Amino acid sequence: MNAPEALPAVLDRIDRDLDASLDRLFALLRIQSISTDPAYASYCRAAADYVAADLRGLGFDTSVRPTQGHPVVVGKTGNGTGRATAGGRPPRVLFYGHYDVQPVDPLDLWTTPPFEPRLETLEGDRKIIVARGACDDKGQAMTFIEACRAFKAVTGALPLDITMLIEGEEECGSKHLFGFVRDNAAELSRDLALVCDTGMWDSETPSITTSLRGLVYEEVRVTCADRDLHSGLFGGAARNPIHVLADILAALHKPDGLVAIPHFYDGVPELPADIRADLAALGLTPEKFLAPVGLRIPAGEQGRLIIEQVSTRPTAEVNGIIGGYTGEGAKTVIASTAMAKVSFRLVGTQDPDKIRAGFRDFVRARLPADCKVAFGDKTSAPAFAVAFDNPALVKARAALAEEWGKKAVTVGAGGSIPIVADFKNVLGMDTLMVGFALDDDRVHSPNEKYDLKSFHKGIRSWARILATLAA
Amino acid sequence: MNAPEALPAVLDRIDRDLDASLDRLFALLRIQSISTDPAYASYCRAAADYVAADLRGLGFDTSVRPTQGHPVVVGKTGNGTGRATAGGRPPRVLFYGHYDVQPVDPLDLWTTPPFEPRLETLEGDRKIIVARGACDDKGQAMTFIEACRAFKAVTGALPLDITMLIEGEEECGSKHLFGFVRDNAAELSRDLALVCDTGMWDSETPSITTSLRGLVYEEVRVTCADRDLHSGLFGGAARNPIHVLADILAALHKPDGLVAIPHFYDGVPELPADIRADLAALGLTPEKFLAPVGLRIPAGEQGRLIIEQVSTRPTAEVNGIIGGYTGEGAKTVIASTAMAKVSFRLVGTQDPDKIRAGFRDFVRARLPADCKVAFGDKTSAPAFAVAFDNPALVKARAALAEEWGKKAVTVGAGGSIPIVADFKNVLGMDTLMVGFALDDDRVHSPNEKYDLKSFHKGIRSWARILATLAA
Repeated sequence: MNAPEALPAVLDRIDRDLDASLDRLFALLRIQSISTDPAYASYCRAAADYVAADLRGLGFDTSVRPTQGHPVVVGKTGNGTGRATAGGRPPRVLFYGHYDVQPVDPLDLWTTPPFEPRLETLEGDRKIIVARGACDDKGQAMTFIEACRAFKAVTGALPLDITMLIEGEEECGSKHLFGFVRDNAAELSRDLALVCDTGMWDSETPSITTSLRGLVYEEVRVTCADRDLHSGLFGGAARNPIHVLADILAALHKPDGLVAIPHFYDGVPELPADIRADLAALGLTPEKFLAPVGLRIPAGEQGRLIIEQVSTRPTAEVNGIIGGYTGEGAKTVIASTAMAKVSFRLVGTQDPDKIRAGFRDFVRARLPADCKVAFGDKTSAPAFAVAFDNPALVKARAALAEEWGKKAVTVGAGGSIPIVADFKNVLGMDTLMVGFALDDDRVHSPNEKYDLKSFHKGIRSWARILATLAA
Repeated sequence: MNAPEALPAVLDRIDRDLDASLDRLFALLRIQSISTDPAYASYCRAAADYVAADLRGLGFDTSVRPTQGHPVVVGKTGNGTGRATAGGRPPRVLFYGHYDVQPVDPLDLWTTPPFEPRLETLEGDRKIIVARGACDDKGQAMTFIEACRAFKAVTGALPLDITMLIEGEEECGSKHLFGFVRDNAAELSRDLALVCDTGMWDSETPSITTSLRGLVYEEVRVTCADRDLHSGLFGGAARNPIHVLADILAALHKPDGLVAIPHFYDGVPELPADIRADLAALGLTPEKFLAPVGLRIPAGEQGRLIIEQVSTRPTAEVNGIIGGYTGEGAKTVIASTAMAKVSFRLVGTQDPDKIRAGFRDFVRARLPADCKVAFGDKTSAPAFAVAFDNPALVKARAALAEEWGKKAVTVGAGGSIPIVADFKNVLGMDTLMVGFALDDDRVHSPNEKYDLKSFHKGIRSWARILATLAA
């Protein structure tokens, strides 16, 4: 029986096994695997061992691999599974998740202890799982593992060639994972990566994150006179670096909100009409998006959906500025120097090096001849995106729509997930980010929760995705 | 014998008495009257007593008047002196100076002890008096007192009705003098104030400071979102207060350097053609003026002399700015709020209240409707200026030209001397600021000096000014 044929039985098994699935999740949630605090190192090890044992039970060839930090769990499918002839071969997939969690302070804001998971019923019979890690990422990762378990139970095998990569340092920067991925590239390089660490559009609408914006971060320091000057003696004659900097920063955007740096938009794609129409149909107005932070008027590019502005359009933002006297009271100084931090979010094939060079040229072109500028190169990362016609993406969208009874939207994430960029750049594969978190999950905060519906239908969603990828 | 007739004998007496004048100055310089350090309070009192005794010897009705801080010495001319009929009456003058000095640290940079005054001969037989206070203001104040002494010696009387006001807190903000002047307004209000605390244009060219720029200082804080935002999540949609502030500050000046606030130039006078020609003839190029601070290109209003830019033209300067992340490294934040400190130097009859209101309107007109602005009212002072055709100014210029063999320039000071504004606003009189300091006097620094030529010809200059005012 192939995977698509087995799907109805697999879904049925998932429904019947839900209580046991919850028990297994609760067991994992009880392990205090706070990665950033060295005092919890043994708990992190215990969580890795727990996950490894579970995977081993599903037939994964599993190892707990040491790093300089917390260990990485790697599970590989046995020989033969999912193998097929070239041309018709289903994708070999790498599933990435993490077993570590955020710290729990302030502890007194938790209504029950963070590592004593419980099921709570809200009004309308809405059930939630409350615990640290309930959503991020133990609950989400377990949706995938439980889907594998159901396939194993029903068909005796996993539906695809699956490699599991479950790390323990995501909440403190994944600092040893990058090297681990590079050092084990041959082993980890598959056809497609799957990640369950993102959210739904809303509680009814499934979502796949198909792009992450890249980043160029610059520090720019303008120096005019070689010392601070008295504005009474020099005001009106000596160049003021705050004025120079303000002029440059004010010129960064055109009146229509576009970034004014020449060639900035080289490599910026337009959304396909159907994808943009899907996004428009979501009805997210600027007012709805901005109201939670006390604003109502969108500030960016004119003629764009707010969801485009924050996810699939590039930006320039001044993240900080300082110069002259900023203490209490009045001081009539003309500063020698002023500094700003500026970052650019990139999309499509915008080249970080060219963006950085373009910005520096833009600044130098506006610098008075007797002033100096110094740049600090802070960080850069290219954007990541899955093509909208990627066959796996098309299949996954259809699978999600079947499960949720509603079209799955594809969204861009405004920020970056560095390991996904490495999957692309080091391992040469795309990533589908499918997750079931909701905006009110209180991720990283007290009383973190995960809807039971997210957990249950998340497992079913993965079962459908695995089945369709195996077809 | 009236004062003008006595002048030749007075000048002759000054020349013959120079050594004794120096001895008297040295005696005053030996008193460690550092006003800002409470440990030196008794020295301040001693300096006040010394000055009072000296004035008493010249026939002044002298008192050492207590304040909450160091005392003020007031000396008044006896009845009858300088009195004349209305219409032809010579001006009654108030002379203002200060007996206190700056601290002396770093002491190890002094080549000889700061309170052991000495005469040093430089190359070209140039003699200088070296001590703390040699110039500021003991040496300068003594030029006036020695001129009075010479008149008294030759004619037996002072040439005018003179009131002396010698304070002891100038170097720490004159904080008790303002109240003292208000409380004793009737006694101190004369026709004209004279101050000897300014400089020559250069060692050959005498100068009268005829204007002081006023000041409006503002703090402006722009708030957009009600919290700091992640630029990955909100970048491109949420208003950035640093952008808003940069746009406003960049708009403050037009491309020709003029301030763009409507009505900003109301009440700004043009220099009379002859005065401007005198200033142009001094040949101060922007390069010469800016080279000492590492600049060469003037930044202010186009089509103005550099000396106009820094003294008789109004300005707008951003004195400080801060917002967002300004520490080490990269943080992708969109700040909730950003703040700038902005000051305006005023001239002529520019109204500080209207300038402040105009700036606030200018800011509000550029503020997005969903953002907020708060202003901090820091300080304001109107400009001060003596009319170029003021009879006393015209006479004093002529007297200085006779003494120095060179036309005396009238210059504006870019900063403010608050007590001069009070002489105008509280006591209703103009001030002539005539001084003999040179740019290399190291005022407030180690090895402060005063040229013997400044001291000697300074005394002679005051004698000529007193004679011509008495005529």
